[in-house]
Amino acid sequence: MYPKSIEDLINSLQMLPGVGAKSAERYAFEMLEWNKNDLESFAEAIHSIQTNIKKCEICGNVAESERCEVCKSPNRNKAIICIVQSSKDVLAMEKMHEYDGLYHVLNGVISTTKGILPENLNIKSLLARVDENTKEVIIATNPTVEGELTALYISKLLKDKNVEITRIAHGIPMGGHLDYTDELTLMKALEGRKSM
Amino acid sequence: MYPKSIEDLINSLQMLPGVGAKSAERYAFEMLEWNKNDLESFAEAIHSIQTNIKKCEICGNVAESERCEVCKSPNRNKAIICIVQSSKDVLAMEKMHEYDGLYHVLNGVISTTKGILPENLNIKSLLARVDENTKEVIIATNPTVEGELTALYISKLLKDKNVEITRIAHGIPMGGHLDYTDELTLMKALEGRKSM
Repeated sequence: MYPKSIEDLINSLQMLPGVGAKSAERYAFEMLEWNKNDLESFAEAIHSIQTNIKKCEICGNVAESERCEVCKSPNRNKAIICIVQSSKDVLAMEKMHEYDGLYHVLNGVISTTKGILPENLNIKSLLARVDENTKEVIIATNPTVEGELTALYISKLLKDKNVEITRIAHGIPMGGHLDYTDELTLMKALEGRKSM
Repeated sequence: MYPKSIEDLINSLQMLPGVGAKSAERYAFEMLEWNKNDLESFAEAIHSIQTNIKKCEICGNVAESERCEVCKSPNRNKAIICIVQSSKDVLAMEKMHEYDGLYHVLNGVISTTKGILPENLNIKSLLARVDENTKEVIIATNPTVEGELTALYISKLLKDKNVEITRIAHGIPMGGHLDYTDELTLMKALEGRKSM
Protein backbone atom coordinates (compact mmCIF):
# COMPACT_ATOMS: atom_id res chain seq x y z
CA MET A 1 0.00 0.00 0.00
CA TYR A 2 0.93 3.66 -0.12
CA PRO A 3 2.89 5.30 2.69
CA LYS A 4 0.54 6.21 5.52
CA SER A 5 0.52 9.97 4.95
CA ILE A 6 -0.57 9.52 1.33
CA GLU A 7 -3.19 7.01 2.40
CA ASP A 8 -4.50 9.53 4.97
CA LEU A 9 -4.61 12.29 2.39
CA ILE A 10 -6.51 10.08 -0.07
CA ASN A 11 -9.03 9.22 2.65
CA SER A 12 -9.63 12.88 3.42
CA LEU A 13 -9.97 13.84 -0.24
CA GLN A 14 -12.45 11.03 -0.73
CA MET A 15 -14.79 12.70 1.74
CA LEU A 16 -15.34 15.56 -0.72
CA PRO A 17 -18.72 15.29 -2.49
CA GLY A 18 -18.53 13.21 -5.67
CA VAL A 19 -14.85 12.35 -5.25
CA GLY A 20 -14.17 8.61 -5.52
CA ALA A 21 -11.05 6.55 -4.85
CA LYS A 22 -9.49 7.16 -8.27
CA SER A 23 -9.99 10.94 -8.22
CA ALA A 24 -8.75 11.17 -4.64
CA GLU A 25 -5.63 9.24 -5.65
CA ARG A 26 -5.11 11.54 -8.60
CA TYR A 27 -5.53 14.63 -6.43
CA ALA A 28 -3.14 13.29 -3.79
CA PHE A 29 -0.39 12.50 -6.30
CA GLU A 30 -0.84 15.89 -7.91
CA MET A 31 -0.46 17.47 -4.47
CA LEU A 32 2.87 15.64 -3.98
CA GLU A 33 4.17 17.88 -6.77
CA TRP A 34 2.92 21.13 -5.19
CA ASN A 35 5.45 23.44 -3.65
CA LYS A 36 5.77 23.96 0.09
CA ASN A 37 3.90 27.27 0.07
CA ASP A 38 0.86 25.92 -1.73
CA LEU A 39 0.61 22.95 0.61
CA GLU A 40 0.98 25.17 3.65
CA SER A 41 -1.70 27.58 2.40
CA PHE A 42 -4.04 24.65 1.86
CA ALA A 43 -3.53 23.21 5.34
CA GLU A 44 -3.74 26.72 6.80
CA ALA A 45 -7.04 27.42 5.03
CA ILE A 46 -8.50 24.22 6.47
CA HIS A 47 -7.38 25.19 9.95
CA SER A 48 -8.74 28.63 9.37
CA ILE A 49 -12.29 27.68 8.37
CA GLN A 50 -12.39 25.53 11.47
CA THR A 51 -11.52 28.38 13.83
CA ASN A 52 -12.60 31.51 11.97
CA ILE A 53 -15.84 30.67 10.23
CA LYS A 54 -19.02 31.15 12.21
CA LYS A 55 -22.64 31.49 11.24
CA CYS A 56 -23.92 35.08 11.49
CA GLU A 57 -26.06 35.32 14.62
CA ILE A 58 -28.67 37.35 12.75
CA CYS A 59 -29.05 35.75 9.32
CA GLY A 60 -27.10 32.46 9.37
CA ASN A 61 -24.74 33.50 6.57
CA VAL A 62 -21.06 32.52 6.84
CA ALA A 63 -19.10 35.12 8.80
CA GLU A 64 -15.70 35.69 10.35
CA SER A 65 -17.18 37.40 13.40
CA GLU A 66 -20.54 37.28 15.24
CA ARG A 67 -22.20 39.07 12.35
CA CYS A 68 -21.69 38.73 8.60
CA GLU A 69 -20.56 41.56 6.32
CA VAL A 70 -24.08 42.20 5.04
CA CYS A 71 -25.67 42.43 8.51
CA LYS A 72 -22.80 44.63 9.73
CA SER A 73 -23.09 47.08 6.83
CA PRO A 74 -24.84 50.43 7.59
CA ASN A 75 -25.70 50.83 3.90
CA ARG A 76 -28.20 48.00 3.54
CA ASN A 77 -31.96 48.45 3.36
CA LYS A 78 -33.14 46.79 6.56
CA ALA A 79 -36.78 46.73 5.41
CA ILE A 80 -36.21 43.86 2.97
CA ILE A 81 -35.08 40.34 3.84
CA CYS A 82 -34.24 37.86 1.10
CA ILE A 83 -34.46 34.21 2.18
CA VAL A 84 -31.96 31.89 0.48
CA GLN A 85 -30.95 28.27 0.90
CA SER A 86 -27.23 28.76 1.39
CA SER A 87 -24.40 31.25 1.68
CA LYS A 88 -23.44 30.41 -1.90
CA ASP A 89 -26.74 31.99 -2.95
CA VAL A 90 -25.89 35.14 -0.99
CA LEU A 91 -22.76 35.45 -3.08
CA ALA A 92 -24.72 34.88 -6.29
CA MET A 93 -27.11 37.70 -5.28
CA GLU A 94 -24.28 40.02 -4.26
CA LYS A 95 -22.50 39.58 -7.59
CA MET A 96 -25.54 41.17 -9.24
CA HIS A 97 -24.84 44.52 -7.44
CA GLU A 98 -28.55 45.27 -7.55
CA TYR A 99 -30.01 44.08 -4.26
CA ASP A 100 -29.29 46.17 -1.18
CA GLY A 101 -31.53 44.47 1.38
CA LEU A 102 -30.64 41.86 4.00
CA TYR A 103 -30.55 38.07 3.75
CA HIS A 104 -31.68 35.11 5.76
CA VAL A 105 -29.83 31.87 5.09
CA LEU A 106 -31.90 28.74 5.78
CA ASN A 107 -28.94 26.38 5.42
CA GLY A 108 -30.99 23.87 3.46
CA VAL A 109 -34.58 23.18 2.41
CA ILE A 110 -37.31 20.96 3.76
CA SER A 111 -36.79 17.51 2.26
CA THR A 112 -38.86 14.47 3.08
CA THR A 113 -36.44 12.15 1.27
CA LYS A 114 -33.40 13.46 3.13
CA GLY A 115 -35.33 13.75 6.38
CA ILE A 116 -34.76 17.51 6.67
CA LEU A 117 -37.57 19.03 8.73
CA PRO A 118 -38.41 22.71 9.28
CA GLU A 119 -36.82 22.51 12.74
CA ASN A 120 -33.48 21.54 11.13
CA LEU A 121 -33.45 24.81 9.21
CA ASN A 122 -32.66 28.34 10.33
CA ILE A 123 -36.36 29.31 10.44
CA LYS A 124 -36.97 30.11 14.11
CA SER A 125 -34.63 33.11 14.07
CA LEU A 126 -36.36 34.31 10.89
CA LEU A 127 -39.70 34.55 12.67
CA ALA A 128 -38.02 36.47 15.49
CA ARG A 129 -36.40 39.03 13.20
CA VAL A 130 -39.37 39.82 10.93
CA ASP A 131 -40.98 42.75 12.78
CA GLU A 132 -42.68 46.11 12.17
CA ASN A 133 -39.53 47.43 10.44
CA THR A 134 -39.73 44.69 7.84
CA LYS A 135 -41.66 45.72 4.72
CA GLU A 136 -40.95 42.76 2.47
CA VAL A 137 -39.67 39.21 2.66
CA ILE A 138 -38.42 37.83 -0.66
CA ILE A 139 -38.33 34.04 -0.70
CA ALA A 140 -35.49 33.02 -3.01
CA THR A 141 -35.18 29.28 -2.42
CA ASN A 142 -34.33 27.30 -5.57
CA PRO A 143 -37.28 26.50 -7.89
CA THR A 144 -37.09 22.78 -7.15
CA VAL A 145 -39.75 20.65 -5.49
CA GLU A 146 -38.11 21.05 -2.09
CA GLY A 147 -37.44 24.74 -2.65
CA GLU A 148 -41.07 25.40 -3.59
CA LEU A 149 -42.31 23.41 -0.61
CA THR A 150 -40.06 25.36 1.72
CA ALA A 151 -41.18 28.66 0.17
CA LEU A 152 -44.82 27.70 0.71
CA TYR A 153 -44.14 26.61 4.29
CA ILE A 154 -42.38 29.87 5.15
CA SER A 155 -44.99 32.03 3.43
CA LYS A 156 -47.66 30.40 5.61
CA LEU A 157 -45.65 30.98 8.76
CA LEU A 158 -45.27 34.67 7.93
CA LYS A 159 -48.89 35.19 6.81
CA ASP A 160 -50.01 36.77 10.08
CA LYS A 161 -47.15 39.25 10.12
CA ASN A 162 -47.81 42.63 8.54
CA VAL A 163 -45.27 42.13 5.78
CA GLU A 164 -45.36 41.61 2.05
CA ILE A 165 -44.17 38.14 1.09
CA THR A 166 -42.82 37.74 -2.42
CA ARG A 167 -41.30 34.86 -4.33
CA ILE A 168 -38.36 35.33 -6.65
CA ALA A 169 -39.63 34.55 -10.14
CA HIS A 170 -39.17 34.44 -13.92
CA GLY A 171 -36.05 33.45 -15.69
CA ILE A 172 -34.68 30.80 -13.39
CA PRO A 173 -35.53 27.56 -15.18
CA MET A 174 -37.47 25.02 -13.10
CA GLY A 175 -35.16 22.40 -11.64
CA GLY A 176 -32.22 24.79 -11.83
CA HIS A 177 -30.13 26.23 -9.04
CA LEU A 178 -29.81 29.84 -7.95
CA ASP A 179 -26.05 29.85 -7.67
CA TYR A 180 -25.57 28.57 -11.22
CA THR A 181 -27.68 31.34 -12.71
CA ASP A 182 -26.13 34.16 -14.73
CA GLU A 183 -26.52 37.68 -13.39
CA LEU A 184 -28.98 38.89 -16.02
CA THR A 185 -31.37 35.99 -15.46
CA LEU A 186 -31.09 36.53 -11.75
CA MET A 187 -31.85 40.22 -12.17
CA LYS A 188 -34.98 39.39 -14.20
CA ALA A 189 -36.04 36.92 -11.59
CA LEU A 190 -35.72 39.59 -8.92
CA GLU A 191 -37.63 42.21 -10.93
CA GLY A 192 -40.46 39.79 -11.75
CA ARG A 193 -41.16 38.74 -8.16
CA LYS A 194 -44.84 38.23 -7.33
CA SER A 195 -46.87 38.29 -4.11
CA MET A 196 -47.72 34.87 -2.76
CA MET B 1 -17.18 38.16 -1.43
CA TYR B 2 -16.77 35.20 0.90
CA PRO B 3 -14.89 35.52 4.19
CA LYS B 4 -11.15 35.31 3.54
CA SER B 5 -10.62 31.82 4.96
CA ILE B 6 -13.31 30.37 2.67
CA GLU B 7 -11.85 32.27 -0.27
CA ASP B 8 -8.40 30.84 0.56
CA LEU B 9 -9.77 27.32 0.81
CA ILE B 10 -11.57 27.66 -2.55
CA ASN B 11 -8.32 28.87 -4.14
CA SER B 12 -6.40 25.88 -2.81
CA LEU B 13 -9.08 23.40 -3.90
CA GLN B 14 -9.10 24.94 -7.37
CA MET B 15 -5.47 23.92 -7.79
CA LEU B 16 -6.52 20.26 -7.84
CA PRO B 17 -6.51 18.81 -11.37
CA GLY B 18 -9.84 19.30 -13.14
CA VAL B 19 -11.43 21.20 -10.27
CA GLY B 20 -12.97 24.51 -11.41
CA ALA B 21 -14.41 27.42 -9.47
CA LYS B 22 -17.85 25.85 -9.00
CA SER B 23 -16.58 22.48 -7.77
CA ALA B 24 -14.07 24.15 -5.45
CA GLU B 25 -16.91 26.24 -4.01
CA ARG B 26 -19.02 23.14 -3.53
CA TYR B 27 -16.16 21.27 -1.84
CA ALA B 28 -15.41 24.23 0.44
CA PHE B 29 -19.01 24.59 1.59
CA GLU B 30 -19.25 20.86 2.15
CA MET B 31 -16.11 21.07 4.27
CA LEU B 32 -17.74 23.75 6.44
CA GLU B 33 -20.10 20.99 7.57
CA TRP B 34 -17.32 18.51 8.44
CA ASN B 35 -16.56 17.88 12.08
CA LYS B 36 -13.43 19.13 13.81
CA ASN B 37 -11.67 15.74 13.64
CA ASP B 38 -12.12 15.31 9.91
CA LEU B 39 -10.85 18.79 9.19
CA GLU B 40 -7.86 18.28 11.45
CA SER B 41 -6.98 14.95 9.83
CA PHE B 42 -7.16 16.60 6.42
CA ALA B 43 -4.84 19.47 7.39
CA GLU B 44 -2.58 17.01 9.20
CA ALA B 45 -2.31 14.75 6.13
CA ILE B 46 -1.30 17.74 4.00
CA HIS B 47 1.36 18.70 6.52
CA SER B 48 2.47 15.11 6.65
CA ILE B 49 3.02 14.54 2.92
CA GLN B 50 5.08 17.71 2.94
CA THR B 51 7.42 16.50 5.67
CA ASN B 52 7.24 12.70 5.47
CA ILE B 53 7.08 11.83 1.79
CA LYS B 54 10.36 11.48 -0.02
CA LYS B 55 11.34 9.85 -3.27
CA CYS B 56 13.16 6.54 -2.81
CA GLU B 57 16.86 7.16 -3.47
CA ILE B 58 17.09 3.93 -5.45
CA CYS B 59 13.96 3.71 -7.56
CA GLY B 60 12.15 7.07 -7.25
CA ASN B 61 8.99 5.53 -5.75
CA VAL B 62 7.19 7.44 -2.96
CA ALA B 63 8.66 6.55 0.42
CA GLU B 64 8.53 7.58 4.05
CA SER B 65 12.27 7.08 4.52
CA GLU B 66 15.34 7.13 2.25
CA ARG B 67 14.24 3.90 0.62
CA CYS B 68 10.76 2.69 -0.34
CA GLU B 69 9.14 -0.47 1.01
CA VAL B 70 9.93 -2.48 -2.12
CA CYS B 71 13.62 -1.56 -2.20
CA LYS B 72 13.93 -2.20 1.55
CA SER B 73 12.35 -5.66 1.35
CA PRO B 74 14.76 -8.65 1.51
CA ASN B 75 12.19 -10.83 -0.29
CA ARG B 76 12.25 -9.16 -3.69
CA ASN B 77 13.97 -10.59 -6.76
CA LYS B 78 16.72 -8.06 -7.39
CA ALA B 79 17.46 -9.44 -10.89
CA ILE B 80 14.30 -7.87 -12.40
CA ILE B 81 13.50 -4.18 -12.60
CA CYS B 82 10.10 -3.01 -13.82
CA ILE B 83 10.05 0.55 -15.16
CA VAL B 84 6.80 2.45 -14.57
CA GLN B 85 5.65 6.02 -15.08
CA SER B 86 4.45 6.75 -11.56
CA SER B 87 4.09 5.45 -8.03
CA LYS B 88 0.41 4.84 -8.75
CA ASP B 89 1.52 2.19 -11.23
CA VAL B 90 3.69 0.53 -8.55
CA LEU B 91 0.56 0.16 -6.45
CA ALA B 92 -1.38 -1.25 -9.42
CA MET B 93 1.37 -3.85 -9.93
CA GLU B 94 1.58 -4.69 -6.24
CA LYS B 95 -2.16 -5.30 -6.01
CA MET B 96 -1.67 -8.18 -8.46
CA HIS B 97 0.47 -10.11 -5.89
CA GLU B 98 2.32 -11.75 -8.76
CA TYR B 99 5.41 -9.67 -9.42
CA ASP B 100 8.27 -9.93 -6.93
CA GLY B 101 10.98 -7.91 -8.69
CA LEU B 102 11.99 -4.30 -8.15
CA TYR B 103 10.66 -1.10 -9.71
CA HIS B 104 12.01 2.04 -11.24
CA VAL B 105 9.67 5.02 -11.25
CA LEU B 106 10.30 7.51 -14.07
CA ASN B 107 7.95 10.13 -12.67
CA GLY B 108 6.55 10.90 -16.10
CA VAL B 109 7.14 10.15 -19.77
CA ILE B 110 8.91 11.98 -22.57
CA SER B 111 6.42 14.42 -24.05
CA THR B 112 7.20 16.88 -26.83
CA THR B 113 3.90 18.69 -26.33
CA LYS B 114 4.39 19.14 -22.60
CA GLY B 115 8.10 19.83 -23.03
CA ILE B 116 9.16 16.85 -20.88
CA LEU B 117 12.62 15.73 -21.96
CA PRO B 118 14.55 12.58 -20.97
CA GLU B 119 16.65 14.66 -18.54
CA ASN B 120 13.48 15.66 -16.65
CA LEU B 121 12.78 11.99 -15.90
CA ASN B 122 14.36 9.63 -13.40
CA ILE B 123 16.45 7.91 -16.08
CA LYS B 124 20.04 8.68 -15.05
CA SER B 125 19.78 6.65 -11.84
CA LEU B 126 18.25 3.79 -13.86
CA LEU B 127 21.37 3.51 -16.01
CA ALA B 128 23.49 3.52 -12.87
CA ARG B 129 21.57 0.71 -11.17
CA VAL B 130 21.28 -1.70 -14.11
CA ASP B 131 24.43 -3.83 -13.66
CA GLU B 132 25.70 -7.43 -13.90
CA ASN B 133 23.16 -8.52 -11.27
CA THR B 134 20.26 -7.35 -13.41
CA LYS B 135 18.84 -10.09 -15.64
CA GLU B 136 15.77 -8.33 -17.02
CA VAL B 137 14.32 -4.87 -17.34
CA ILE B 138 10.56 -4.80 -17.97
CA ILE B 139 9.41 -1.52 -19.48
CA ALA B 140 5.85 -0.93 -18.26
CA THR B 141 5.13 2.62 -19.35
CA ASN B 142 1.52 3.19 -20.47
CA PRO B 143 0.72 2.11 -24.06
CA THR B 144 0.18 5.70 -25.20
CA VAL B 145 2.20 7.60 -27.82
CA GLU B 146 4.40 9.15 -25.13
CA GLY B 147 4.68 5.86 -23.22
CA GLU B 148 5.78 3.96 -26.33
CA LEU B 149 8.27 6.67 -27.24
CA THR B 150 9.74 6.58 -23.75
CA ALA B 151 9.91 2.77 -23.84
CA LEU B 152 11.79 2.92 -27.13
CA TYR B 153 14.14 5.58 -25.84
CA ILE B 154 14.99 3.60 -22.72
CA SER B 155 15.40 0.31 -24.60
CA LYS B 156 17.99 2.02 -26.81
CA LEU B 157 19.84 3.40 -23.81
CA LEU B 158 20.03 -0.07 -22.25
CA LYS B 159 20.93 -1.90 -25.46
CA ASP B 160 24.64 -2.11 -24.68
CA LYS B 161 24.07 -3.52 -21.21
CA ASN B 162 24.03 -7.29 -20.90
CA VAL B 163 20.38 -7.43 -19.84
CA GLU B 164 17.14 -8.64 -21.37
CA ILE B 165 14.80 -5.75 -22.13
CA THR B 166 11.11 -6.61 -22.31
CA ARG B 167 7.98 -4.56 -22.83
CA ILE B 168 4.80 -5.23 -20.90
CA ALA B 169 2.24 -6.38 -23.46
CA HIS B 170 -1.19 -7.79 -24.38
CA GLY B 171 -4.38 -6.94 -22.69
CA ILE B 172 -3.89 -3.30 -21.89
CA PRO B 173 -5.92 -1.48 -24.54
CA MET B 174 -4.00 1.12 -26.57
CA GLY B 175 -4.60 4.61 -25.22
CA GLY B 176 -5.45 3.22 -21.78
CA HIS B 177 -3.66 3.71 -18.51
CA LEU B 178 -1.86 1.15 -16.35
CA ASP B 179 -3.37 2.22 -13.07
CA TYR B 180 -6.96 1.91 -14.37
CA THR B 181 -6.42 -1.68 -15.48
CA ASP B 182 -8.01 -4.61 -13.66
CA GLU B 183 -5.69 -7.16 -12.07
CA LEU B 184 -6.42 -9.97 -14.53
CA THR B 185 -5.66 -7.85 -17.59
CA LEU B 186 -2.52 -6.62 -15.90
CA MET B 187 -1.46 -10.19 -15.17
CA LYS B 188 -1.96 -11.15 -18.84
CA ALA B 189 0.04 -8.14 -19.91
CA LEU B 190 2.88 -9.21 -17.64
CA GLU B 191 2.83 -12.82 -18.86
CA GLY B 192 2.77 -11.79 -22.52
CA ARG B 193 5.79 -9.50 -22.36
CA LYS B 194 8.08 -9.59 -25.42
CA SER B 195 11.73 -8.77 -26.10
CA MET B 196 12.28 -5.42 -27.80
